[in-house]
Amino acid sequence: MARTLEIVGERWTLLVVRDLLFGVRRFNDLQRHLDIPKAVLAARLATLEAQGLVERDARRELTLTERGRDLWPAVHALMAWGERHCNDAGPRRLFVHARCGTTLDHLGACPACGREPGPEELETRSGPGAEPLRDDAVSVKLREPHRLLAPL
Amino acid sequence: MARTLEIVGERWTLLVVRDLLFGVRRFNDLQRHLDIPKAVLAARLATLEAQGLVERDARRELTLTERGRDLWPAVHALMAWGERHCNDAGPRRLFVHARCGTTLDHLGACPACGREPGPEELETRSGPGAEPLRDDAVSVKLREPHRLLAPL
Repeated sequence: MARTLEIVGERWTLLVVRDLLFGVRRFNDLQRHLDIPKAVLAARLATLEAQGLVERDARRELTLTERGRDLWPAVHALMAWGERHCNDAGPRRLFVHARCGTTLDHLGACPACGREPGPEELETRSGPGAEPLRDDAVSVKLREPHRLLAPL
Repeated sequence: MARTLEIVGERWTLLVVRDLLFGVRRFNDLQRHLDIPKAVLAARLATLEAQGLVERDARRELTLTERGRDLWPAVHALMAWGERHCNDAGPRRLFVHARCGTTLDHLGACPACGREPGPEELETRSGPGAEPLRDDAVSVKLREPHRLLAPL
């Protein structure tokens, strides 16, 4: 776990991975959605590329490798903890098993199937506690249901 | 998730929570096992106490609150990612559902029961990739099977 946190334990890195799981592909979208200094974001992405979690295509669009996508259970668990313990207004964001329409439980399992779907099988939707005020492109698009990993 | 990482996203904090889940109770044991500067450990523990994740009893022994114990799925997911992606020598540490003796899968579920046991239901054991060299008190005790949360 110490080595894992050497890769993803820096402030912002898991938030970058979360946004890439949501389907964000462009540096500027990440930068505006996370409200992060450009130099810090560039450094975090360079580490994620060097460690083989992130790739860029010919148009410089960012995607997660399998190694990066495998962080989904950790990202979900951290989000679920925040929803339970840092949030009185109800969940901000729901994750739904697309095939059966069932909302995941806080352990990342689908109560209908008993399985833990991977991110490619999930849709995210705004929850009742969502903050309606932000107007960057990613926040606006994420107000509508969106399949994880699909370009945002 | 941004607020979650404000609490637990600082370097070391999740390693401290992991050790407390393992049952470490004393500052000096944490400090030697994590090989962390004392001032940094004191600051991280102060944050965890202020945020209601850690309590101290009359003897100054440290325990996790329910809010802290609820980080188990996130801690397990980060450990499991490291075992899969940063480790060629086989798993360093196994987590076994104590009641049925079954090793958890990488999603934290018990393949025999289909459930995700909480830390109080789990035993940890050294795996085949364990590093045998460290000789601090916690590393030595964790070479033997140990129930999570039980004093170490």
